[in-house]
Amino acid sequence: MTAKKVDAASGTRDFLASDVRAREEAFAIIRQTFDRYGFEPLQTPAFERLELLTGKYGEEGDKLVFKILRRGEHEASGEADLALRYDLTVPLARVVATYGSQLPSPYKRYAIAPVWRADRPGKGRFREFYQCDLDVVGSTSPLADAEVVSALADALSALGVPEFRFLVNSRKVLYALLDVFEVPRALGGRTLIVLDKLDKLPPAAVAVELGGLGLDAGTAGRLVDTLSGPDADTSVRKALAGSDAGRAGLAEVDQLIGMSVGQVGEHRIGFSGSLVRGLDYYTGPIYEVTAPGVPGSIASGGRYDGLVAKLGGPDLPACGGSLGVERILPLLPTAETAGTGLDVAVTVLDADSGADLAGIAGRLRAAAIRTGVYLGGSGKLARQLKWANDQHARYALLYGAAERERGGVTVRDMQTGEQQDVPIEEVTAYLAGRLAE
Amino acid sequence: MTAKKVDAASGTRDFLASDVRAREEAFAIIRQTFDRYGFEPLQTPAFERLELLTGKYGEEGDKLVFKILRRGEHEASGEADLALRYDLTVPLARVVATYGSQLPSPYKRYAIAPVWRADRPGKGRFREFYQCDLDVVGSTSPLADAEVVSALADALSALGVPEFRFLVNSRKVLYALLDVFEVPRALGGRTLIVLDKLDKLPPAAVAVELGGLGLDAGTAGRLVDTLSGPDADTSVRKALAGSDAGRAGLAEVDQLIGMSVGQVGEHRIGFSGSLVRGLDYYTGPIYEVTAPGVPGSIASGGRYDGLVAKLGGPDLPACGGSLGVERILPLLPTAETAGTGLDVAVTVLDADSGADLAGIAGRLRAAAIRTGVYLGGSGKLARQLKWANDQHARYALLYGAAERERGGVTVRDMQTGEQQDVPIEEVTAYLAGRLAE
Repeated sequence: MTAKKVDAASGTRDFLASDVRAREEAFAIIRQTFDRYGFEPLQTPAFERLELLTGKYGEEGDKLVFKILRRGEHEASGEADLALRYDLTVPLARVVATYGSQLPSPYKRYAIAPVWRADRPGKGRFREFYQCDLDVVGSTSPLADAEVVSALADALSALGVPEFRFLVNSRKVLYALLDVFEVPRALGGRTLIVLDKLDKLPPAAVAVELGGLGLDAGTAGRLVDTLSGPDADTSVRKALAGSDAGRAGLAEVDQLIGMSVGQVGEHRIGFSGSLVRGLDYYTGPIYEVTAPGVPGSIASGGRYDGLVAKLGGPDLPACGGSLGVERILPLLPTAETAGTGLDVAVTVLDADSGADLAGIAGRLRAAAIRTGVYLGGSGKLARQLKWANDQHARYALLYGAAERERGGVTVRDMQTGEQQDVPIEEVTAYLAGRLAE
Repeated sequence: MTAKKVDAASGTRDFLASDVRAREEAFAIIRQTFDRYGFEPLQTPAFERLELLTGKYGEEGDKLVFKILRRGEHEASGEADLALRYDLTVPLARVVATYGSQLPSPYKRYAIAPVWRADRPGKGRFREFYQCDLDVVGSTSPLADAEVVSALADALSALGVPEFRFLVNSRKVLYALLDVFEVPRALGGRTLIVLDKLDKLPPAAVAVELGGLGLDAGTAGRLVDTLSGPDADTSVRKALAGSDAGRAGLAEVDQLIGMSVGQVGEHRIGFSGSLVRGLDYYTGPIYEVTAPGVPGSIASGGRYDGLVAKLGGPDLPACGGSLGVERILPLLPTAETAGTGLDVAVTVLDADSGADLAGIAGRLRAAAIRTGVYLGGSGKLARQLKWANDQHARYALLYGAAERERGGVTVRDMQTGEQQDVPIEEVTAYLAGRLAE
């Protein structure tokens, strides 16, 4: 058979050692944080029955679902019966529907796992990427929202994200504003979607887009004026002063901030009347986390009481949030090379020393010392020391005929080049001590 | 939208909290072991271009590949262009082909990841399951084989598998036997496949099957006699005494055992002349690991010098092994419930205490204490203590109007029911101390 080079599939990535280590370390920190909050891990399969996913993500989303061809005699039909996971929320709804009372109530779960979307691949946009969700299903308590916010903030701090800020709003505030400004109900959803662009477009451009929806110019202008500029939050509060629904929404926001601020930090959380969040399933408090120099948000979430039922689960209240791990990972300080190099590189200077060297290496590993044995074909010391150097080894062990005769090992410090004779039975303790220095 | 209950896809599993924890713990132990040997982690995407996988797994294997339908305007064609990973070896060959000299030489990598096969689901047989591979690409050194064997044995010991045994043979031994017994070359491969059944079928039945292949009855009988029974290993050595190739194969086996026995243990490794391993890509030493009461093997491996090139990679020698993690996991002692319950359950006795409780919970979590806050709708203490009990909480915190007034917290030991008043600023230290007892 002739070798034919085939690339990785478009939009996917291979993670070599240092990337795997950096990612796994970050995931471990996130898991540990969520665990301390009493959230439980959940793992669902990579694929689901196609019917579970169909119709759940809107027309655009449906097109991005990777579908799996039927098998065997059905393959020729060209039909699909399974599909790759598109997010972690639909599988959560299925699990809640399937396991019901076997789950704790409320069910606090987290999931860190890849999802697959047939998006056009681009800079920083992949077809396989990780999502990191935590949700509370079955609680209407505002403490549940506060727990999610605090856990997200703790995770960001623990990861070492240098600066971030939670912007908090409520869908109730937004709907009350639409009422106060007499936006026709039929235009409400689309109006919010356009208002969501206020962080990207100039206010006048947003007003024009609102006009395009059918809003009269006066309403569009007043809405945009209220929601933009440095005093937007004060203007929103003023505009809602006479609205019961509006005051209730603001109280919800203030309560969430009040319950979270101790954990998140005064300067890291605040009200933002212009925060919309594109997704229309939110029903209560909503939030996004921004970081300097990062376009868009690095985390987000909110309350979505009707969603679990809509996705096929039981009718339970729920709230949750998501860490944008793929956006956060590049923000983190680069992992040290420590841990990626060898502690000890064992050279192999003659063919007869194999069993002895395996024994020495075994004892080092039993002492948790990361030990590599030279597996190349060269018998030359210089070549083998180059290999040890390429492996970032801190020490090399030299064990040839002379050492074997005197029952010792030569330990070479790879930084200084200094060499030391050590009796074979002392070499583990000697190296453990040197490495702990 | 009406809720419609949809099951998980056939042959897949959901892992709830305790399962996730047990699996992750096992995977962490394996990773740590392989890491000490200087193996590096590799993660490749869940799917590959279809052409990479096609023709790599034989006719039967090809049928079991999950294929992904083309998207957008091409969906209607009913054609596939991508496929889910079927094993971890083909992606390894692709990575070696793609990254070449960027990788260390030799490239020692491990991978622990799900693969997908459209097998008929059955008891203990899944369509999504984890594989755990470690391989050395680019070394002909017998030390490389010994390292893989030792790393597999260390991982099994570290996992706590109570008993296991490595059976070691070499393809060279088997081919030499075929020559000695004058099995026609054309029948060699199929003869080995039938001989592989000696651990399941009575010798006479195997002899009959060999006859069915076209072997004459005398040859079939002598082969089966040599390879079965308690003295098989001695008979094999005797049969090969006059064969140069056979003696070389036996020397290879003895060398591998000699280099590994110190690490693996005398009683846990030995020669087995009747070990065949079904796969025809092995070229040198081969081994399987058996455990009492487990049908088949829990780990296996060998040298397969031509395989990387055959799979589309460069022509490099390679050896490697695999831990049957899905078979091993059920053998392990059940994980303790410790760590899955809450350390502290915080009750919520009135609506005004939310911010105070969030602060208390936050300080506990900062001290690595696993803390859950009651998120249900009941204001009744008895109901909340039942919740704390359901969460396996070791302590409950009671904080109502009386506690708030005196600046204290009531700490309840959930096992004894004893209660203790603790000043609010001392509660973290108090609980950290009690939990460390």
